Amino acid sequence: MNKADCPFCKGPAGHVVFSGPRFRILRPQEAGFPAFYRLVWAEHVAELSDLSAADRLLCMESVVKVEQVLRRHLKPSKINLASLGNMVPHLHWHIIARFDWDSHFPAPVWAPAQRQAPADALAQVVAAREAVEDNIRAELT
Amino acid sequence: MNKADCPFCKGPAGHVVFSGPRFRILRPQEAGFPAFYRLVWAEHVAELSDLSAADRLLCMESVVKVEQVLRRHLKPSKINLASLGNMVPHLHWHIIARFDWDSHFPAPVWAPAQRQAPADALAQVVAAREAVEDNIRAELT
Repeated sequence: MNKADCPFCKGPAGHVVFSGPRFRILRPQEAGFPAFYRLVWAEHVAELSDLSAADRLLCMESVVKVEQVLRRHLKPSKINLASLGNMVPHLHWHIIARFDWDSHFPAPVWAPAQRQAPADALAQVVAAREAVEDNIRAELT
Repeated sequence: MNKADCPFCKGPAGHVVFSGPRFRILRPQEAGFPAFYRLVWAEHVAELSDLSAADRLLCMESVVKVEQVLRRHLKPSKINLASLGNMVPHLHWHIIARFDWDSHFPAPVWAPAQRQAPADALAQVVAAREAVEDNIRAELT
């Protein structure tokens, strides 16, 4: 996939939580997962090993900062981290707060759903999101 | 989950490719994915952010070394990296060489299969595995 066809090169591709020169943090709309974030690397490279050691460190320590904010504010059952990119081979990390009540837990979010998530639990996460995202910005700025 | 119940604390949990004091590299038997590796952190911690900054660097740079060997030897369509651990919350990274002919591509390995992988392509990856694993050991030693 060249840059002209790449959705991460063409536009924001989600609600922009933080934007810096090397990467941005997005909150895409992933139904049933209200605390699903993405770190999108600015440069159009496919793999983590395409980055320099210094950029890998920046990338992964930034992923960890988002993880830490999610843990602190949302007390999730587990954090899921993944860099897949089979469809969009432009380096991006999924950073997902998982809860034992969510639609897929304990399966990965890409597996079939196991149940419908309770609306009140989802609403509580949505209500906490403004503070989460303020803190993500504060950690990354 | 405490250590007494943890499959990564109880035993090797796969074919051991490399074993060091801080982590080991396993090749689990994942049907249809002949180049599916796991980095299992030795200490029973759940999240990447439970590690010190120095250990996070060691962990991720070791993941990258495995990724680089897989890319060099197997020329995969994509590398998939994931730390999920919803079922076994003991820090481990899936490091998977994906091919456009594999049973799930371009979907994640946790999604439903899309086809049966061709036996000859699978056999070629299996045939390259000894060299891959010799190189993983060389990179990590």
